[in-house]
Amino acid sequence: MNVLLIGANGQIGQYLVDLLHNSDEHTVKAMVRKEEQAEVLKDKGVESIVADLEGNVDEISAAVDGCDAVIFTAGSGGSTGSDKTLLVDLDGAAKAVEAAEKQGVKRFVMVSALQAHNRENWNDKLRPYYVAKHYADNVIEASNLTYTIIRPGGLLNEPGTGNVSVAENLTRGSIPREDVARTVMAALTEEKTFRRSFDVTAGDHEITEALRNL
Amino acid sequence: MNVLLIGANGQIGQYLVDLLHNSDEHTVKAMVRKEEQAEVLKDKGVESIVADLEGNVDEISAAVDGCDAVIFTAGSGGSTGSDKTLLVDLDGAAKAVEAAEKQGVKRFVMVSALQAHNRENWNDKLRPYYVAKHYADNVIEASNLTYTIIRPGGLLNEPGTGNVSVAENLTRGSIPREDVARTVMAALTEEKTFRRSFDVTAGDHEITEALRNL
Repeated sequence: MNVLLIGANGQIGQYLVDLLHNSDEHTVKAMVRKEEQAEVLKDKGVESIVADLEGNVDEISAAVDGCDAVIFTAGSGGSTGSDKTLLVDLDGAAKAVEAAEKQGVKRFVMVSALQAHNRENWNDKLRPYYVAKHYADNVIEASNLTYTIIRPGGLLNEPGTGNVSVAENLTRGSIPREDVARTVMAALTEEKTFRRSFDVTAGDHEITEALRNL
Repeated sequence: MNVLLIGANGQIGQYLVDLLHNSDEHTVKAMVRKEEQAEVLKDKGVESIVADLEGNVDEISAAVDGCDAVIFTAGSGGSTGSDKTLLVDLDGAAKAVEAAEKQGVKRFVMVSALQAHNRENWNDKLRPYYVAKHYADNVIEASNLTYTIIRPGGLLNEPGTGNVSVAENLTRGSIPREDVARTVMAALTEEKTFRRSFDVTAGDHEITEALRNL
């Protein structure tokens, strides 16, 4: 598949660029916000496109054009305020869904957050972020896309282990970003994940096997 | 009808308290955030209940209990940041919908914002607010409630005229808050507004007639 990776410059995104670029099965088009980011990718031999999630849907549609799948791992991050959370994490995600629908691209993988579907389990400090993720996930689930919503626990920068736990509800846990990226990769073609949403944390099951047993 | 008014202490809410309280058709239960606000209402002879849209759904369900309709005109307002916009205007509204569904209360009237359904027409400065209103409206439209979503133009503090324009799309305009409150009142029992969403601005048509011709 030719995959549009939205949020390619993020921490999980950078792992995914490498995984997709080195894969025999897939090719990647990396969507980034800035020209400099595109240049860095170009130097690595990775196709990239500059587009802004705060722009209009047509801009994102143009990025989706020619792709077979979309991965959304963009986020406004912790250093900006909730304005950007609303504009990027919520409305930006909804625009990506609309762009995929417009271009007839069915496959859509979203990186969400652990328990984003359960308000009772939202971390008080991150509550506004969870609101945005929750309603973005709602938009995806209400769409006709062949979606997978992956909700990772607390993100760690340590190296991945290749082993995870996946389930509709894992009330707490953390996971290396590298393993989130690998889970996204494995989910891309695993039909057991189609039109499914699930939590993922570090665990004891090899990733492809864990997804096959979802 | 016995109406739960959420946001009774807001500027539109205060007009609605009086309209509902003085009505022969309806009674009002005014939901407010603070005990002092409840005391002021009590002194006026208005039934009130203290509940927090940032609390859990059960708290709001208890307020909805015994009512026949819910009006939502709460908002975090311009003096707080987008954190509160996410928590109150979006998630708080969704909680009110859930509470109504839980209690089997079908009638739900939402005060939204002009063109909240059309991203292209969002005011750049108010864009995060529009995102929240848009996805709150989405939640209502996806529910099984007998909803009406009223999207007023720029809110004015001048006295109402009793005349408005209503349509699915009015690209710009303003309206006195008093006329928004009157439109909400008239919509409550006007079947032409059931499961409908529309813009409203100052205009040339008497409110009940305007809604009847929607």
